[in-house]
Amino acid sequence: MVVTPWEVKGKVDYERLIREFGTQPLTPELLSRVESRTGKLHLQLERQIFFSHRDLDTVLDLYDKGVKFVLYTGRGPSGPVHIGHLVPWIFTLHIQQKFNTRLYFQLTDDEKYLIDDDATLKETSHWAYENALDLIALGFKPEDTFIIYDTEDIDLLYDITLQVAKRITYSTARSSFGFQDSTNIGWVFWPAIQAAPCFIHKKLTGENVPALIPAAIDQDPYWRVTRDIAPKIGYYKPAQIHCRFLPGLGAGGKMSASMPETSIFTMDQPDAVKKKIWNAYTGGRGTAAEQRKLGADPTVCSIFQYYFFLFEEDAARLAERERKCKVGEMLCGECKMDIAEKLNRFLQNHQERREKAKDVIEQYHIKRK
Amino acid sequence: MVVTPWEVKGKVDYERLIREFGTQPLTPELLSRVESRTGKLHLQLERQIFFSHRDLDTVLDLYDKGVKFVLYTGRGPSGPVHIGHLVPWIFTLHIQQKFNTRLYFQLTDDEKYLIDDDATLKETSHWAYENALDLIALGFKPEDTFIIYDTEDIDLLYDITLQVAKRITYSTARSSFGFQDSTNIGWVFWPAIQAAPCFIHKKLTGENVPALIPAAIDQDPYWRVTRDIAPKIGYYKPAQIHCRFLPGLGAGGKMSASMPETSIFTMDQPDAVKKKIWNAYTGGRGTAAEQRKLGADPTVCSIFQYYFFLFEEDAARLAERERKCKVGEMLCGECKMDIAEKLNRFLQNHQERREKAKDVIEQYHIKRK
Repeated sequence: MVVTPWEVKGKVDYERLIREFGTQPLTPELLSRVESRTGKLHLQLERQIFFSHRDLDTVLDLYDKGVKFVLYTGRGPSGPVHIGHLVPWIFTLHIQQKFNTRLYFQLTDDEKYLIDDDATLKETSHWAYENALDLIALGFKPEDTFIIYDTEDIDLLYDITLQVAKRITYSTARSSFGFQDSTNIGWVFWPAIQAAPCFIHKKLTGENVPALIPAAIDQDPYWRVTRDIAPKIGYYKPAQIHCRFLPGLGAGGKMSASMPETSIFTMDQPDAVKKKIWNAYTGGRGTAAEQRKLGADPTVCSIFQYYFFLFEEDAARLAERERKCKVGEMLCGECKMDIAEKLNRFLQNHQERREKAKDVIEQYHIKRK
Repeated sequence: MVVTPWEVKGKVDYERLIREFGTQPLTPELLSRVESRTGKLHLQLERQIFFSHRDLDTVLDLYDKGVKFVLYTGRGPSGPVHIGHLVPWIFTLHIQQKFNTRLYFQLTDDEKYLIDDDATLKETSHWAYENALDLIALGFKPEDTFIIYDTEDIDLLYDITLQVAKRITYSTARSSFGFQDSTNIGWVFWPAIQAAPCFIHKKLTGENVPALIPAAIDQDPYWRVTRDIAPKIGYYKPAQIHCRFLPGLGAGGKMSASMPETSIFTMDQPDAVKKKIWNAYTGGRGTAAEQRKLGADPTVCSIFQYYFFLFEEDAARLAERERKCKVGEMLCGECKMDIAEKLNRFLQNHQERREKAKDVIEQYHIKRK
């Protein structure tokens, strides 16, 4: 298992990540505090897709005392968005709506340029624009959603970035991010730029409030360093809430844009989706007859994960699907056809909203505020 | 002897710097090529105050073929400007006027913040403004002088900075700049920001021309790294012309703002100047009688260096002053009174022009162009 901000490989053991990263599990007590604010728990909390945190309790304590928080998350625009990327964004939208709070969303076109030898700034800036459309398509409202394009908005980030960078030694950066002698100095500096949006709300509004960062757990090393520095420069430590990775359609491993045949992209067309689903790895048997007799294994099935993460919100129906699978009542073909249909309906809606987002995207740009 | 971008200590051996840094001496042949363009050689070339270069010959070759160059220099705004800082700026103005070319001038308030533990961004930005006034007071014209304030103008520099940073490994940066594990990551990144103005002219005008950098030789390590990268990203290597340091008023060492009692600042008032000059280290003897008999040593005299660098343009009169000193015809008191008067006349004019610069400073800002 390898989990770093730049690489996720192998079968991810989330319990072990909590121990190794030193984060806290989302306890039933904490979840019920969230529930009392949001009404019914969001599917991603109920199913422990978000499973770990840092300082969520502190953020809720402050909230109870009248200190709001802002949300901060982002995306490295190296290519098109797949539905694994949408998982934490959907959750972020839920939290935004329930807590009526602002989101800062960073598109790190500079980072993706620096870490990929072959990338050009033109490409990464292009993908930043494209990826922003996907975010907006989910239903974020412009009045509360501030999109930061690093290369365009560096002037807004730079003073905070310098304050952070001054307080991170190369030695700390190396041990936190695994930098080597061959790492370029842009990459070495970059963690300070990812830290800046944690603190930008105070600069824009004068309000000193904590940031809560919903993101996949691979980003945690960034925030450890940022959390050490925050109090030294007069800010709250950024809090985090960590999610699991949506698996790809292959055998194991997270959904990854670098393996397009096992990823469902938001712009995929229905035939392509059907084909990818048809080729997906499942827990099925060699023959239909055998499967009817012995049942299949949903715990290793990539398709089942799609129901679990996104496409079966009803717990009872999810359990029923699992039961039918295990006892051989429902074969993989039927299950795949169901998910392909759900996916294509979802994507059709998404693509329509994404097209409309082109007319309003500038309203979300932090520079326009 | 220590000569780095951040520290100059001991008696500087300029011949040795040429050898160790691998630069070229300004040969008589090259000087006569310059002279054929500028008319009479500038005092700072004639007296070898500018003594070394990289690619000045190439810049002149290109110029002969119709490819102009731009000038680029700058200042780390850590405090007030002293007259040692003015030396290369005066020369830069001369080259600008004779070659009718544009100057980019970088005020590195970000760098000074990053490298000085106690500095605040507010202070370094304040000094950036104050130091710009000194530059403008020398007579630079707004139409050809583009001042860059790093923290304000980072958005103009950032794309080029990223292109450069991507091509400098930490290992290269460490060996070029002496970075250590305890160096902060802002400082590690910073050389890429100093490189950006070398290449900004193409972005602003579409013209690909080389930059010629007149600066004290301690800045050379920056340009070595930048020169390696320039052709890889489609630019000419920046050329340089290196000057000596104006000595301070003490015994040895360059004029340094950290030793204010041995530095003449542009805002010093007449009485302060007289006092500093009166306390200056000279090559004089213990008593007037002894000095009249044995003469003094102008080669170690800080006052004589002031005539040499700035305040005696006439070579014959300088030689006469040297002769009188050596044979004891002129004592230190007289020489000091002369220089104090010249200095105060110079500073009075400078301060008047500096005051007027406050009304026009925005015309020089690169953002206003």
